[in-house]
Amino acid sequence: MRVDDPAQLLVQAKQSNRVALARLISIVERGGFGARELARLTWGQGDNSYLVGITGSPGAGKSTLTDRLISQVRARSQEVAVIAIDPTSPFSGGAILGDRVRMQEHATDQGVFIRSMATRGHLGGLALAVPDAARLLAHVGFPYVLIETVGVGQVEVEVVGAADTVVVVMTPGWGDAIQANKAGLMEVADVFIINKADRDGARETRRDLELMLEMSTFEGWVPPIIETVATEGKGIEDAFDAIESHRDYLERSGAGRRKREARILEEFTRIVHAEVSRKVDQLLADPSFQARKAEMVSGEIDPYSIASDLLGFEEEKGPESL
Amino acid sequence: MRVDDPAQLLVQAKQSNRVALARLISIVERGGFGARELARLTWGQGDNSYLVGITGSPGAGKSTLTDRLISQVRARSQEVAVIAIDPTSPFSGGAILGDRVRMQEHATDQGVFIRSMATRGHLGGLALAVPDAARLLAHVGFPYVLIETVGVGQVEVEVVGAADTVVVVMTPGWGDAIQANKAGLMEVADVFIINKADRDGARETRRDLELMLEMSTFEGWVPPIIETVATEGKGIEDAFDAIESHRDYLERSGAGRRKREARILEEFTRIVHAEVSRKVDQLLADPSFQARKAEMVSGEIDPYSIASDLLGFEEEKGPESL
Repeated sequence: MRVDDPAQLLVQAKQSNRVALARLISIVERGGFGARELARLTWGQGDNSYLVGITGSPGAGKSTLTDRLISQVRARSQEVAVIAIDPTSPFSGGAILGDRVRMQEHATDQGVFIRSMATRGHLGGLALAVPDAARLLAHVGFPYVLIETVGVGQVEVEVVGAADTVVVVMTPGWGDAIQANKAGLMEVADVFIINKADRDGARETRRDLELMLEMSTFEGWVPPIIETVATEGKGIEDAFDAIESHRDYLERSGAGRRKREARILEEFTRIVHAEVSRKVDQLLADPSFQARKAEMVSGEIDPYSIASDLLGFEEEKGPESL
Repeated sequence: MRVDDPAQLLVQAKQSNRVALARLISIVERGGFGARELARLTWGQGDNSYLVGITGSPGAGKSTLTDRLISQVRARSQEVAVIAIDPTSPFSGGAILGDRVRMQEHATDQGVFIRSMATRGHLGGLALAVPDAARLLAHVGFPYVLIETVGVGQVEVEVVGAADTVVVVMTPGWGDAIQANKAGLMEVADVFIINKADRDGARETRRDLELMLEMSTFEGWVPPIIETVATEGKGIEDAFDAIESHRDYLERSGAGRRKREARILEEFTRIVHAEVSRKVDQLLADPSFQARKAEMVSGEIDPYSIASDLLGFEEEKGPESL
């Protein structure tokens, strides 16, 4: 047996073996063959799990809030897994969050699994790895999976935006809702939380937010605005109730099924691109490409023609075919 | 003849018809069939043109500096084209820079062509459109093409980082060189400019920068640090000389040829992905995909298998093949 055999580790992880689960997440993080094999094994078996995304600017108190939500889930005797996304900078190598202080709090609780995720290498890897990890956690039996971002980068918003319920956390100190709008959070938010709501400016933030919501159009669900003071545990039940209300809405309306279908198609598109990247890397490394490469660099042949040949796609005939 | 026939417009643009050139840039911006046709027509014929990228945080005075550099080029009786990159936010729709005040200054000068570029739709489009536009401008005969970014987003740094000479502009007010490092600018910079160097903190910024340069390793070329006050025209000749020195270095050392080759391969990879996106969109719209899609959504078949089938790639056999 291979040391890191996904199938074997998966059996162990389903028997609540947390070490096996952690190793599977590492496989997902690394990407490549192991991650693809795991994706095949876990595909289409996470329908009993609920995915909550938690995003917002750094310093909004997302970690503390996530901790409090974990406690809410645990109070209902449900197991919960948390993925904290920490994208590596594409340039500077970046830092990995690693073990967090808060992990201590839930460390002795077998019903809680917390893991920070980064992808070394390219940023786009996260867009594949996070859904993979979420599916894995659903597959091994967590009824709740929370995904928390560190910042509000494009990939992070994309990934979290695909969750069943997206919680956007802001603070009075964040300034106003305009920043959230700029980061593309208004479009993905299902629940707004104004955390640190005991601070000056909470009322203004709520007003800005309400104004922006009024200017938007919604089908069926208008994101509620919940005020919390996560450090003191205030408003956490309201926040959890809002998430559960949204869940009910998704189930009742059929919007949840559509959301999941969109998520699957989105994931599929990413997978297609990743597969192509892999194929292209292989082709570029192939000796037969070297001659064509020289022709391309010297300008004798254009890259579109080479791309068509390499990929085996037929040429487009003209603007009529658009 | 088609209204926007790239071949026809290209003939006109080469005869210094600026309206035709502007229409070609719009074709590039729109992407799609016209842009691909144009890429084929202009491929491999821009070797006599020199590409300078200018980046740095917003407010560093890049536009003013670019204007001054334009004057330097014009003082040498050379023609110059400028592309100002203004990426559309992937979420909020974003704003287009449009005509800039400074365009007035060079408006009557036929030897200067300035154009702001945005891509509506997805951010990644810029990564294809900017090299396309740069190649087009080289093709129609501009010996200098300057690419200036508004900010230092990932795509912008990527695109500008592919220029022959990359100028990174910072100011004493920017804080320090650490921000530049975070944005991935240390790796791509060939020339550093501390603009607004008459302000407090210029010496500290230079010191921070020198320290970071000392910690880095370079092959053959160590980026010089030039101080300018662009609004007053101070230090501009030094800046231009530094760019020309780097150009000499690239030619002498052969590093320039390698850089261009890397740029072409990078562009090729992007093109392959763009072609695949197009193909995938076609496939997803095809009725024959609908049945498979239902199977995928219901979990009967995993997306890797469908992706392999759709793309006609053979299955990977195991980890040994990695």
